[in-house]
Amino acid sequence: MRSIESDSATQEHQPDGSGSNNEATGGTAGKVYLIGAGPGDPELMTVKGLRYLRGADVVLYDRLINPDLLREARSDASLIYVGKGPGCHSMPQEQINTILVSQAQQGLTVARLKGGDPFVFGRGGEEALALVEAQIPFEIVPGITSAIAVPAYAGIPVTHRDYTTSFTVITGHKGRSASPAVNWRALADLGGTLIVLMGVKALPDVTRQLIEGGLDPATPAAVIQEGTTPQQRTVTGTVADIAQRAADAQLDSPALTIIGSVVNVGDALAHYISISGRTAE
Amino acid sequence: MRSIESDSATQEHQPDGSGSNNEATGGTAGKVYLIGAGPGDPELMTVKGLRYLRGADVVLYDRLINPDLLREARSDASLIYVGKGPGCHSMPQEQINTILVSQAQQGLTVARLKGGDPFVFGRGGEEALALVEAQIPFEIVPGITSAIAVPAYAGIPVTHRDYTTSFTVITGHKGRSASPAVNWRALADLGGTLIVLMGVKALPDVTRQLIEGGLDPATPAAVIQEGTTPQQRTVTGTVADIAQRAADAQLDSPALTIIGSVVNVGDALAHYISISGRTAE
Repeated sequence: MRSIESDSATQEHQPDGSGSNNEATGGTAGKVYLIGAGPGDPELMTVKGLRYLRGADVVLYDRLINPDLLREARSDASLIYVGKGPGCHSMPQEQINTILVSQAQQGLTVARLKGGDPFVFGRGGEEALALVEAQIPFEIVPGITSAIAVPAYAGIPVTHRDYTTSFTVITGHKGRSASPAVNWRALADLGGTLIVLMGVKALPDVTRQLIEGGLDPATPAAVIQEGTTPQQRTVTGTVADIAQRAADAQLDSPALTIIGSVVNVGDALAHYISISGRTAE
Repeated sequence: MRSIESDSATQEHQPDGSGSNNEATGGTAGKVYLIGAGPGDPELMTVKGLRYLRGADVVLYDRLINPDLLREARSDASLIYVGKGPGCHSMPQEQINTILVSQAQQGLTVARLKGGDPFVFGRGGEEALALVEAQIPFEIVPGITSAIAVPAYAGIPVTHRDYTTSFTVITGHKGRSASPAVNWRALADLGGTLIVLMGVKALPDVTRQLIEGGLDPATPAAVIQEGTTPQQRTVTGTVADIAQRAADAQLDSPALTIIGSVVNVGDALAHYISISGRTAE
């Protein structure tokens, strides 16, 4: 039986198709793998992502990367933390880009582990463009996004045939004025599932704007904290009361909110759910 | 070094927490794993999904499941095709549910391989509810959805910090009257990235309704056929002309369309992309 590890399609980005010899540095360039590490459960890493992680000379990782994944790196690999904690000084994106480029220019193979999927609000596009600019070969390895997997682990499908023909994932970037404002009225009108990747503190504002935009206050909603990990907690309610319920339950980051009729499907599945022996509330 | 395969969070659905003994059948029940097999590249399967696939007594699989994945099943495993081809007679969902239940009631371990993610327009919710109904233990293993990974393999991030705070994934279910109609005006107003999981034949209608709903006809768009496989092909244009361009290039199913400014990021990355030695257009 063939192993899929040795027999899969590959996706490689080579500057101008010229192979791995980097004329800009006069030497052999390394390569960077932008890898989605998934939402928390380390076994939700892809086979391809794990293969590249195990082969890397250098691993750059974010704050929410599961330590079990880091143990998969080679024992002689360099581990570089580039995470940003809430309220802490954070490493500027430009500095992360510089490390990626400089490590690769030394001929090293770099695994850049990003939580979830690199292209879902993960600034993977910015890192990819920096690598293009520096003529560094790279490859993108998609990951399981928390936007879909965290509800799944709480028993909530983001789509269900009788209810939904669309789902929307939104986030907020309050620190950056270039981001367009969210059109809450359009979100309310759309009527599909809504997944909000913002902290619990944003919930009163988010739900108020959705209701002002015309969303039925009785629309089911759930907040899930630390989804796919043994610490997962879920609180359910409606758009009208979910912010208060989440506050009462003292839910905290990382958390996401899912809004829509699919939350009712989750109710039907809820008593079947346990994670590492615990019942998710 | 520990292996993540033996040291991860687990997510198990047990009827009433009563373990695997199924009183309804008077014997030891099997278990069903609803596994997302990813978008095409077999190495985009998760570590967890591959582990369950390799351990299964029975494998139920859809039309677009990569044959390399099926080779990972045990040599004595039963492989059951339950796929639906376009224009062909298809197995009713109720029959698939019945097979899942009956195999598990015989005490077998069943891997249900579904393309992409089980809960993204995959009717995984319906299968999960059927298992709840029959009191069969089951587990959901998220998969990489084509909605995100296919654009990634074409160099297009579904979000990019300067452009987007949201993305929406839509599909069509013309055969089922219960599905709500898509609100094209709300989609146009929302302004984020739009990913359309419909066939190329639907594109003239989709783009016309988006433009009538107010979307700028100059909005960048791309159609990607057989994404993440060696046969991947990409055509780019605008909402105004992408349907004609896709038709001219004779793109066919399976394909998806991505609409939004992020397609421009893809232009910057496009000449870096090759798959199995081929340049994606």
